[in-house]
Amino acid sequence: MSERNRPVPRVGMVGGGQLARMTHQAAIALDVDFRVLARSAGDSAALVCGDVQLGDDRGLNDLLTFAKSCDVVTFDHEHVPEPVLREVEESGARVRPSRDALRHAQDKIRMRTRASELGAPCPRWRAVTTVGQVESFGAEVGWPVVLKAASGGYDGRGVWVADSVSEARTVLDRAAATETPMMVEERVPFRRELAVQVARSPYGQVATYPVVETVQRDGICHEVIAPAPGLDEDRATRAQELAIELAHALDVTGVLAVELFETDDGVVLNELAMRPHNSGHWTIEGARTSQFEQHLRAVLDLPLGSPRTTAPFVVMANVLGGEDSGVFDRYFHVMAKDPELKTHFYGKQVRPGRKIGHVTVQGDDHHALLERVRDAAAHLKGASQ
Amino acid sequence: MSERNRPVPRVGMVGGGQLARMTHQAAIALDVDFRVLARSAGDSAALVCGDVQLGDDRGLNDLLTFAKSCDVVTFDHEHVPEPVLREVEESGARVRPSRDALRHAQDKIRMRTRASELGAPCPRWRAVTTVGQVESFGAEVGWPVVLKAASGGYDGRGVWVADSVSEARTVLDRAAATETPMMVEERVPFRRELAVQVARSPYGQVATYPVVETVQRDGICHEVIAPAPGLDEDRATRAQELAIELAHALDVTGVLAVELFETDDGVVLNELAMRPHNSGHWTIEGARTSQFEQHLRAVLDLPLGSPRTTAPFVVMANVLGGEDSGVFDRYFHVMAKDPELKTHFYGKQVRPGRKIGHVTVQGDDHHALLERVRDAAAHLKGASQ
Repeated sequence: MSERNRPVPRVGMVGGGQLARMTHQAAIALDVDFRVLARSAGDSAALVCGDVQLGDDRGLNDLLTFAKSCDVVTFDHEHVPEPVLREVEESGARVRPSRDALRHAQDKIRMRTRASELGAPCPRWRAVTTVGQVESFGAEVGWPVVLKAASGGYDGRGVWVADSVSEARTVLDRAAATETPMMVEERVPFRRELAVQVARSPYGQVATYPVVETVQRDGICHEVIAPAPGLDEDRATRAQELAIELAHALDVTGVLAVELFETDDGVVLNELAMRPHNSGHWTIEGARTSQFEQHLRAVLDLPLGSPRTTAPFVVMANVLGGEDSGVFDRYFHVMAKDPELKTHFYGKQVRPGRKIGHVTVQGDDHHALLERVRDAAAHLKGASQ
Repeated sequence: MSERNRPVPRVGMVGGGQLARMTHQAAIALDVDFRVLARSAGDSAALVCGDVQLGDDRGLNDLLTFAKSCDVVTFDHEHVPEPVLREVEESGARVRPSRDALRHAQDKIRMRTRASELGAPCPRWRAVTTVGQVESFGAEVGWPVVLKAASGGYDGRGVWVADSVSEARTVLDRAAATETPMMVEERVPFRRELAVQVARSPYGQVATYPVVETVQRDGICHEVIAPAPGLDEDRATRAQELAIELAHALDVTGVLAVELFETDDGVVLNELAMRPHNSGHWTIEGARTSQFEQHLRAVLDLPLGSPRTTAPFVVMANVLGGEDSGVFDRYFHVMAKDPELKTHFYGKQVRPGRKIGHVTVQGDDHHALLERVRDAAAHLKGASQ
């Protein structure tokens, strides 16, 4: 449905998930042409975008066609293989973030190597190919250890806590079967998990959001509290500085999400993502500029928007799929009970445990806010009340 | 691109303008299927919606086809002829607002008749067919008088201020040539113009936004200040009550926008619109629930969202088209100068004086906010700085 010949740039987002869906909402207000490369017409973003290319969002041919139709190419996920990205860049496409930046979000070994070189606080870690290497690492840092697939993981997938050499062997054998490069890390004794987002434009401007607390269960983010309650101000500043340093050093363009552990001694770098991120969904209502608008501004090299928060606390909970497929019928109770609750659903087929939406509230008392979003998320999942 | 067989309702909006465009943004978050009936693929909403029926948004055949594909039909404008609406309703479609309600927004004579019966404060008025009737009305209430086409007007079109009988004759002759029913009203000696929006659901719930001040020039809304600065509290309450009374009496479902004059004695009813309205664009950032989300909730008979404001003042300015067609290049200056400014552009071809977008800011000092949006709107129009 798009009409070209308009004097506005076209941004193409690779992948048709909920991040593309919410970026589409932001693109409408900015009036930039927004196009997604989605695998199926039923994908979250493809359901709502006016301009969709159906195809393989990791495949060279479809990506080259897609890139040719766009002024800037950006991403809903990190799963485009590096050789494909290289060819797309060599075709002359403007890819943001670039392949060079993106590979640090695609490959945890490369990320850890670079972050360590930059002096960023990291867990002790090692790339491993044999169980013997894990055994000696465990002897050095103590058991249990954390085994990670270098690439391809998300939402807890690709991460295993191994209590023993025999558990590590099982994981490594499976990884060897799929030729997955592996690494091992110490299990960081954290108090809680934090995240911080920074946007960076090619022009060199950066804008950082407040540091948030993320509450994870089974490797999946369940809630986000913005800002992280009671976080020491120096620590918050240090976390923001770390995000900015990484964004500059890795030459990130767009939004960079930095996941952190808070330990007794400070903050430790966990993971990176170079796109809008679940830990930033609160910004839709909770910041003057949402992470989705900010990502668009950054990849278009527009001046960045204010990341200032709109309330003392903003709390988000993910809604996970339950046993039955209908969610709409449950809106009635939730909306009647909490008229200030903001709901965001992604148009996804409901499957147990799948992220199908999120809810957000704002106010003064983060305990009360957390209760409200937990209550709403539980009801929307279909749990008994 | 829409995939049916999802357990969510489909709302169809008739008309592909900016109101449908912004309603699409709200529909995405609620995850209801949203479809527009637009005249051309280049229409504001058609550019961004995933589900567009191209056709005549006032014609029976296209409307019947459209309505059959939707669970609820609602409107971006008031221009569907009443006989068409009747047939669409008789086909079994769920039309919200209904034809019975909508005709009060379509026909100013009917609206004035009904509002007068309900005891709503109206200007003195009369339906007229002859210049003699205008002459005697002018003798009664004083000149100048305001002549209005009973239907079809917007943004100052269809409204003429006549200083004399001879001016009135010119207007009436032209109206007679197109068989346009006409009315005459006293020119209300107003201090300023106000507007208030109320949403009403079939269930009977209502939610009212604060009364706002609208600044009009040449019959076109230029700025909106929410809430109206210094408005007497009783008057504000009276205006909100009036909006609620009208919504109930006319059996409105969806958003009702009530435009008012503030005089020395109180508020006087000017116009009605039964849809999201320019005077409510500030709610996108300025209220917990935007008028677009609220309209969807109301026509879907969902519980209404909180209309609570997010800042002491929210100020919006329309961006009008200037001489040259490019606006995007002017984003750089405006966004760099005011990182808190929110821009909303409608994807419209730029024509001098045409509403092509709006900008919004929030804060404590409405004078300063007004300056900021005026400055941004002037720059985006391309005025010399």
